[in-house]
Amino acid sequence: MTETMKRIVLARRPTGAPVDDDFRLEESPAPEPGEGEVLVRVHYMSLDPYMRGRMDDAKSYATPVPLDGTMEGGAVGEVIASNHPNFKPGDFAFGMFGWATHGIQPGDVLRKIDPAHGPITASLGVLGMPGFTGWFGLTEYGQPKEGETVVVAAATGPVGSMVGQIAKARGCRVVGVAGGPEKCKMAVETFGFDECLDHRAYADGAEMRAALAEACPKGIDIYFENVAGKVLEGVLPLMNVGGRIPVCGMISWYNAGALGANAGGDKDQLPKLWRMILVNRLHVHGFIISDHFDRFADFMREVGPMVASGQLKFVEDIAEGLENAPRAFRGMLEGKNKGKQVVKVI
Amino acid sequence: MTETMKRIVLARRPTGAPVDDDFRLEESPAPEPGEGEVLVRVHYMSLDPYMRGRMDDAKSYATPVPLDGTMEGGAVGEVIASNHPNFKPGDFAFGMFGWATHGIQPGDVLRKIDPAHGPITASLGVLGMPGFTGWFGLTEYGQPKEGETVVVAAATGPVGSMVGQIAKARGCRVVGVAGGPEKCKMAVETFGFDECLDHRAYADGAEMRAALAEACPKGIDIYFENVAGKVLEGVLPLMNVGGRIPVCGMISWYNAGALGANAGGDKDQLPKLWRMILVNRLHVHGFIISDHFDRFADFMREVGPMVASGQLKFVEDIAEGLENAPRAFRGMLEGKNKGKQVVKVI
Repeated sequence: MTETMKRIVLARRPTGAPVDDDFRLEESPAPEPGEGEVLVRVHYMSLDPYMRGRMDDAKSYATPVPLDGTMEGGAVGEVIASNHPNFKPGDFAFGMFGWATHGIQPGDVLRKIDPAHGPITASLGVLGMPGFTGWFGLTEYGQPKEGETVVVAAATGPVGSMVGQIAKARGCRVVGVAGGPEKCKMAVETFGFDECLDHRAYADGAEMRAALAEACPKGIDIYFENVAGKVLEGVLPLMNVGGRIPVCGMISWYNAGALGANAGGDKDQLPKLWRMILVNRLHVHGFIISDHFDRFADFMREVGPMVASGQLKFVEDIAEGLENAPRAFRGMLEGKNKGKQVVKVI
Repeated sequence: MTETMKRIVLARRPTGAPVDDDFRLEESPAPEPGEGEVLVRVHYMSLDPYMRGRMDDAKSYATPVPLDGTMEGGAVGEVIASNHPNFKPGDFAFGMFGWATHGIQPGDVLRKIDPAHGPITASLGVLGMPGFTGWFGLTEYGQPKEGETVVVAAATGPVGSMVGQIAKARGCRVVGVAGGPEKCKMAVETFGFDECLDHRAYADGAEMRAALAEACPKGIDIYFENVAGKVLEGVLPLMNVGGRIPVCGMISWYNAGALGANAGGDKDQLPKLWRMILVNRLHVHGFIISDHFDRFADFMREVGPMVASGQLKFVEDIAEGLENAPRAFRGMLEGKNKGKQVVKVI
């Protein structure tokens, strides 16, 4: 009795913000798992900013999604058939199942999830790739020290909220940037940021800078970069000598296309940045979290108990239905989500 | 019998390239050394790109030279009076004597130079601040590994030629960039670079990139940044995953003023750079060599014998007369010097 599998494919490459017609819903019988493989019925799938890059046909750290191919992404669900000794029907597993109701992966690359340890959606956010990204980038490249000032944008997202909470736990002053007064309130009240600035209140990098200067009277030691744009412009002149900038994303520029064409800003930005790096002896580290999964166990060891005890908070924004994934994705790039964006697939 | 001291003061802050009227030659009796101080009659003074930054009145890593103040800089000369037990008349010493025929410094901050170990001018270049800059930036932040490809501009300058030769000694492929066929020949024949590109032959970053791509078939692992401009634009797209960029200068942008205003380039440069840092997981490290003089002894231990044995080459370009320092300085920013620019003061 084969189940029907629905999946969302990339119908064409978006220009700027993705629209509905860039995607297509397809149906087919769910495939049978081959040797060593596991078939999972997806309960929740993850939406993450990096997926925008996969829609472009440009050199990046990963192959683009092919046209008519299933959109990629992490998801969690219930095993319904298994040819792998570690998994049996009824188990829960996280894997790269894509934007689909069902997925097949080799059992060797799946992570088993125990629903008794909390909501299975945590494997997509706070205890998954985004949380790991925040923890790794901050601790490995940010090297936070007590009394330092940390700035992170997208403060209520799953990466930013991890960065902020770990930095607080290490004794830093943490200033968030988020879109809208509601998110700023959440950053302070739910996630414990010392302050959070609403970037919508500032027209450009200069205004952003003035607000940040007030919120960071001792300058900025660590800027965890995940948005770029005017936040970056505002932050750079305030970096202290020896400051660190882990770079894991640039969401405000993603819709500008692979090479940032028409991303705005003045033509002297690069010389200004370069001068700041020199004058303030900054250390800028680009990283892609998939290079570092050898550290995932360290992450779970530190952060797992903090989540279990309730010390480390997380917030999820759950859209309903696979067919709404494109809309939810677009909303996330526009900052409409509150907390980690997830789609409930069944 | 007091000697007459000549010095060049900053008469006004230059706009763009410094011109003669930005400076003024002054004469006064040479001062007397105070307690613990040493008076030196300068033989050679150093001209270095960083001095352009000192002429601007902008936040930098050092205080600007005040108007009517003596231009700063390192110099080497003969002790003619000393109130410090480590120095006696006839000794040679390196210190920050500025653009002047005489200088006074506390004996504690002077470095004694032994003329028996080679030309005293080496203390201004290959065995001084520029050579140390190249060695430190390459080894500490570049982390060169055998078989990697290193690109360095201003290849025949005292920093670039050090970077290239140390990188070669560590088994790297080294590609230089320099201005004009004569310098390129020097980079290859004198300093042992594998290849050297004449940046004048390339109109912009795109042409620079095409030439670099051919010279670096395995991509670029380390870009030692000391010029910025079109070389930087050409290099960035060719950086390999995990590449390192030590940043110690940006000579092509110095004359653009402190904040790089009108430095040229298109307005999407910053997004492009930022994307490259992310996609290729680059590590960018700004540094100012004066932070790292605790490593100077390590440098001398490794490089001193290489210079003494002739394994490590150096070339000096010696201008005659203090009054010609402004012209020689301007020429250096335009790349007219061949090798380390020095001024013979007496």
